[in-house]
Parts: sequence; structure tokens; C-alpha cells
Amino acid sequence: MDAATSQLLGTLILGRSVAALATLHDGRPFASMIPYAIHLDSRTGRLRFITHVSRLSTHTRDMLESPDVCLLVTMPENNSQPPQALPRVSLPATATFIAPGDDDHGSLKAAYLARFPHAADYFQLGDFSIVTLEPVSARFIAGFARALTLSPAQVAAAVGDVALG
Amino acid sequence: MDAATSQLLGTLILGRSVAALATLHDGRPFASMIPYAIHLDSRTGRLRFITHVSRLSTHTRDMLESPDVCLLVTMPENNSQPPQALPRVSLPATATFIAPGDDDHGSLKAAYLARFPHAADYFQLGDFSIVTLEPVSARFIAGFARALTLSPAQVAAAVGDVALG
Repeated sequence: MDAATSQLLGTLILGRSVAALATLHDGRPFASMIPYAIHLDSRTGRLRFITHVSRLSTHTRDMLESPDVCLLVTMPENNSQPPQALPRVSLPATATFIAPGDDDHGSLKAAYLARFPHAADYFQLGDFSIVTLEPVSARFIAGFARALTLSPAQVAAAVGDVALG
Repeated sequence: MDAATSQLLGTLILGRSVAALATLHDGRPFASMIPYAIHLDSRTGRLRFITHVSRLSTHTRDMLESPDVCLLVTMPENNSQPPQALPRVSLPATATFIAPGDDDHGSLKAAYLARFPHAADYFQLGDFSIVTLEPVSARFIAGFARALTLSPAQVAAAVGDVALG
């Protein structure tokens, strides 16, 4: 992946705050929306998406039953290019529920609240959980007929380069 | 569903041109992006989403193997409300490939090209197909903690009311 394409990917992931989430629901695919923040471990290069979901939501029950999910992050529609050419990335991922007592809970919660300060109230509600979504691969459509299959490490590097400026 | 909520749903569906599409891929969910147009049969009230996809795409192969899919249409992010409150609708749907000789092909193609005039070129390519996505139900999140389960007829009525002004 060349530098400009990597920068486009990093900017896309860091620039949005919601993703589509595909889950398995009673054996068929279901699509819903989640807010997300990013956690990048600078020591290991591990990249995780963080969300905060209610146990009342369909996708939460789906992830409890099957942790195999897929994220989609899409560049906003604009008037300067046809929607077919919009950059977007599909990220098959594994969902993990993070309990308040887990080692990572504090840093993940901090990263989520840095992105969504107003969400602090939801952490008072007992039925909300932090869930991490760790990509296992990526399919990046950088523009019309520009599809790349990427490793999690390549996605993490693209995000890290943009985050560190 | 009250009139204001129905209008919000119709405006959401008619106002966007891309949706997230959840498909089943090797037994696990996959999320990708599709452009869409709307076809509403004013006589029967039947509502279908229309897309135009390449046989080279992952989601096309997925839909050929399993027609059970789910669409997600999301209001654009903005600075005036938290992303958790963004209106969005999940539409479990059935995918049907429409061959050039099918009765409906002409009217579906016309509806698609009315929305995406630049896509005319793609119809010259042999590996592209029109696919209709017909909702079997809907889960509309009209705002924070405002979730409604709707029938396809309710979604069609909401779209029809907005389309007809």
C-alpha cells in the first residue's frame, strides 16, 4: 500500500465516529449502527475498535451468541464524486466483552470517553458494556476499482501514522 | 407510528444514496457498501431497493449463495447531536437478481439511472447485474431510545408519503 492510500485509510477510520456492524442474528446477517472509538497499543501495534452497547440491543445479544462480526466504515457522501467511488473499509472482526474488572477496562473506557464525553452518563447504567472489535483482516475500497486486501497490522500502521501526525 | 416519525423515516430512506449491506460470507457476517435507488409500485405498495453490482464483488457472490441480507441506512453524522442519537433503519431483506429479459428490468433500470445517471456506462459491462432488495421487516431507531419494529408496508407508506410530497 503506497503512502497516500495508507493515509486515506487512516484518515477514514479516525475521521468517522460511527460504523455499520454486521452480526449473525438467528442464522442470518443483521446490520446495525455503532459509535466507535479507537484504541491503538503503541507498544504492540494492536488496534481495537471500542464501542459501548446496551444489553437491550439486538446486536449486543448477537455478539454474545457469536463474536464473529464485521465493521464497515464509509466516507461521508459528498457532491464531488459518485457514491460508487466513496472510500470505505470492511473489517471482519472479533467482538470481546470487557468486564469492569478487566485490566484493559480503564484505558478502553478512557479512550471511549475522550471521543464521546457525553457518554459518561451511560457508564452509570448497569446494562451497558464496553465491547472491543479487533479486526482479523480488512478489505479497503480506496476508490472505484481500487480494492486492497490488508492485514490488521497494515490497518494499525495506517491509523498510527495519521494519529501521530 | 406518528406522522412526524413516519416522515423522518421516509426522508432518511429517500435522502441517502448508499447503504451498508450485511451478507453471509462463508458462514460469517460481512458488511459492505452499496449504492441504492428506490422502486415503489404505486399500485401494489411494494417497496424495493435497487442496486447494481459487479459479479467480481464479494457481496455479489454472497447474495448468489444466500439471498438473506440486511440493509442499514443511517442519517449523516452532524455536529448538533451525538452519534448515538442518529436516526437509522435496519432492513432485513431478500436479494433477487434481475435478468435483462425479466419483465421488471426496464423499470428498475430506469429508476436506478434516474438516481445515478453516470452509472449508464456500467450497464455496458457484462458482469454487472441489477439486484433488488425487498425488506421483510424493519427496525427503525428514530433517536435515542426510540426504537420501532415496522412492517414492509409501513416502510413503503412512509417512503410513499414523502416521495409524493
